[in-house]
Amino acid sequence: MSGFPEYLPAQRLVEQRVGDVLREVFELHGFASIQTRAVETLEMLTRKGEITKEVYVVRRIHAAAGDTDVLGLHFDLTVPFARYVLENAGHLVFPFRRYQIQPAWRGERPQEGRYREFWQADIDIVGQGELATHHDTEVVLVMLEALARLHTELGIPEVLLHVNNRKLAQGFYEGLGVADPLAVIQIVDKLDKVGPAVVGELLSAQGVPAAAVERILELAAIRSADDSFIAAVRALGVDNALLETGLQELATLLSALRARFPQQVVADLKIARGLDYYTGNVFEIDLPSHPSLGTVSAGGRYDALASDGKHTYPGVGISFGITRVLAPLLAKGVFTASRPVPSCVLVAVDSEETRSVADAVAAALRARNIPCEVSPTAAAYGKQIKVADRRGIPYVWFGGLQGSIKDIRSGAQWDADATCWFPPPADLKPTIMRG
Amino acid sequence: MSGFPEYLPAQRLVEQRVGDVLREVFELHGFASIQTRAVETLEMLTRKGEITKEVYVVRRIHAAAGDTDVLGLHFDLTVPFARYVLENAGHLVFPFRRYQIQPAWRGERPQEGRYREFWQADIDIVGQGELATHHDTEVVLVMLEALARLHTELGIPEVLLHVNNRKLAQGFYEGLGVADPLAVIQIVDKLDKVGPAVVGELLSAQGVPAAAVERILELAAIRSADDSFIAAVRALGVDNALLETGLQELATLLSALRARFPQQVVADLKIARGLDYYTGNVFEIDLPSHPSLGTVSAGGRYDALASDGKHTYPGVGISFGITRVLAPLLAKGVFTASRPVPSCVLVAVDSEETRSVADAVAAALRARNIPCEVSPTAAAYGKQIKVADRRGIPYVWFGGLQGSIKDIRSGAQWDADATCWFPPPADLKPTIMRG
Repeated sequence: MSGFPEYLPAQRLVEQRVGDVLREVFELHGFASIQTRAVETLEMLTRKGEITKEVYVVRRIHAAAGDTDVLGLHFDLTVPFARYVLENAGHLVFPFRRYQIQPAWRGERPQEGRYREFWQADIDIVGQGELATHHDTEVVLVMLEALARLHTELGIPEVLLHVNNRKLAQGFYEGLGVADPLAVIQIVDKLDKVGPAVVGELLSAQGVPAAAVERILELAAIRSADDSFIAAVRALGVDNALLETGLQELATLLSALRARFPQQVVADLKIARGLDYYTGNVFEIDLPSHPSLGTVSAGGRYDALASDGKHTYPGVGISFGITRVLAPLLAKGVFTASRPVPSCVLVAVDSEETRSVADAVAAALRARNIPCEVSPTAAAYGKQIKVADRRGIPYVWFGGLQGSIKDIRSGAQWDADATCWFPPPADLKPTIMRG
Repeated sequence: MSGFPEYLPAQRLVEQRVGDVLREVFELHGFASIQTRAVETLEMLTRKGEITKEVYVVRRIHAAAGDTDVLGLHFDLTVPFARYVLENAGHLVFPFRRYQIQPAWRGERPQEGRYREFWQADIDIVGQGELATHHDTEVVLVMLEALARLHTELGIPEVLLHVNNRKLAQGFYEGLGVADPLAVIQIVDKLDKVGPAVVGELLSAQGVPAAAVERILELAAIRSADDSFIAAVRALGVDNALLETGLQELATLLSALRARFPQQVVADLKIARGLDYYTGNVFEIDLPSHPSLGTVSAGGRYDALASDGKHTYPGVGISFGITRVLAPLLAKGVFTASRPVPSCVLVAVDSEETRSVADAVAAALRARNIPCEVSPTAAAYGKQIKVADRRGIPYVWFGGLQGSIKDIRSGAQWDADATCWFPPPADLKPTIMRG
């Protein structure tokens, strides 16, 4: 069933370790875990027109003939989070910091890098009424720290972060006299896919004058690793107060990010993010060594994601596409696990009558957190060693608590006490490595 | 939206810890994690007639008029697992041991203890062609060990395991001359809900003679903590070879389980499990202190859950209903977390200009895995302490790397070095306790 990736146990180990690292980093930074239900009302899901076509509708198989469809699977973790904040605002302390690692679903036509079911890891910080801009820097640094650990610990490719600012773009377009800046942002968002010529045609078709189209494309071409983007924008001769605010916000963000990750951050003024709720800094992350994977993480600042009668809830967040990165890399065999099973030891069985001896050895090993399993059969030792070999288990235990252990990779065997033997740390659990 | 429980962060911490304990125990016993997609083909999901009415159908919102519905959300983790085994048999080593912790969905009318979205934790061991019966004992012991740890470490109520055997029941009914033993099993399965009088009527309506109905109800009333159930069954005077096999299998299972959990296992001959794929030992677990929660875990032996042209795949498994246990207990406030956030320390900020000093302190703490966050504002210290208090964070750090730390519960404050200070272990992470 295409678009719904499933993994073999050794691949799943990689996914599990990715989730563990993300969770650990997010919690070290004080983000609380939440989970939201898989379904939302269709009304909630279809509020943003553009995405409507991709929603999966959910209904009971025996729904009555007159029943109207009211539920759909969430297509991201932002819409459910906004609803969760509104429903639980009275029980949360703001700024509220949460992470959420869950699947989302889109009923789109499968293609390279697009999935119908995909796991995401989102972090957001949301204020009640107000939220300081230093949180923009914070969420990006937390995600970059997590991705850096995925790189050093698991070998996930290195990332490059592109930052831009909605006020900068909107102020620039307004300064040019453009009537509908949001429409321009959504057209510029297609730049990487269709190229500047087509974007220019689309802008002209919107009634944007030729001179303004030229400036818009010049702005989108600006990219710098330091704050020289400011001079490059000013050289385009557009004067607008919102543009100035955007330039300052972006310069502040860029400088703080470069202090920690000097090689991995660029101001890139073509970054637009199609979604209309962003209002300030916006972020996109790709893998320079794997351009075909496209944007693997993205986010930005929103001044009013959610709002009830009394408060608005401004926030800033960033989302990492776990499936978008892992599914293609796992399919290509870029990663392997040192073994596909948790077990470090297979405890051999002499006969079905003495299986309880092997059970006691296994219990003694597990008491010190050594994953193990007891041989399924009391076959000849050679056959039991073959079982361990086929399952990728590195050690076989023979005899009782005072027994002997064989490293089946080297063939070495020595006497050991199950109540105190411990494997080399690298053998205790499966490890992940580049294939 | 009823039937779709969602948790506040402090409640989610309980759920997360339950998942961690289950994962740890399952992996210690050599079970590999897998995850299957949320959807299956409707054909796969509706193979067993009885469950059909509860399936949630999934279709694209803009599906063409002539499209027929082909996908549904899985209603358990067994059907997807059977499909996964068939699809991946060539890449798996048998006996294959897997665990799976995922949500499932049923479009039923919500009621006490029933959910439309619910998390389950399943373990199964599946063989290719054959599977030894000692694995029946094994999966039950692994689940009982996990539930015992949930009891001692998190305070989840103590469990009682009820065991029975399909061969015993089927052989007994065949020995009585019953034409359709499976129909009888499915009627007896309703005993707890409707009582013996109604079950007797239902059996009579199926054409079962009055004398046989009486024996069937007598069999279902047998319950023993030791193997005295054997004599009680023999006293009913039914002679059948399959019955004898079932008695032996159940006695072997019971004796092995009682050796490890003497107080928590009973043979209970009314346990039937409605599902028609069970063929041997069957298991049900409830919480004697919370009878209203009903069966919280169940499973059994199946001789042919899946089958391709070449092989059948016999297996044995048991499933634990995480939501079924947690949702009502969390709603009643039976559990609390010591705090709703991961953060152990709030690092105070003197002024926005010196926020980077606080960031450096936080980085030093995180380098030793101490979860912390930096104060959102540079307000007066008293206000920053209030922020920590409202978020449940026990410590506030003042000053730079050589600073001071305040335990806001006791009010005590002392000088500390952020590169080597460590909290008491009980304060490092949120802990779970009975409310």
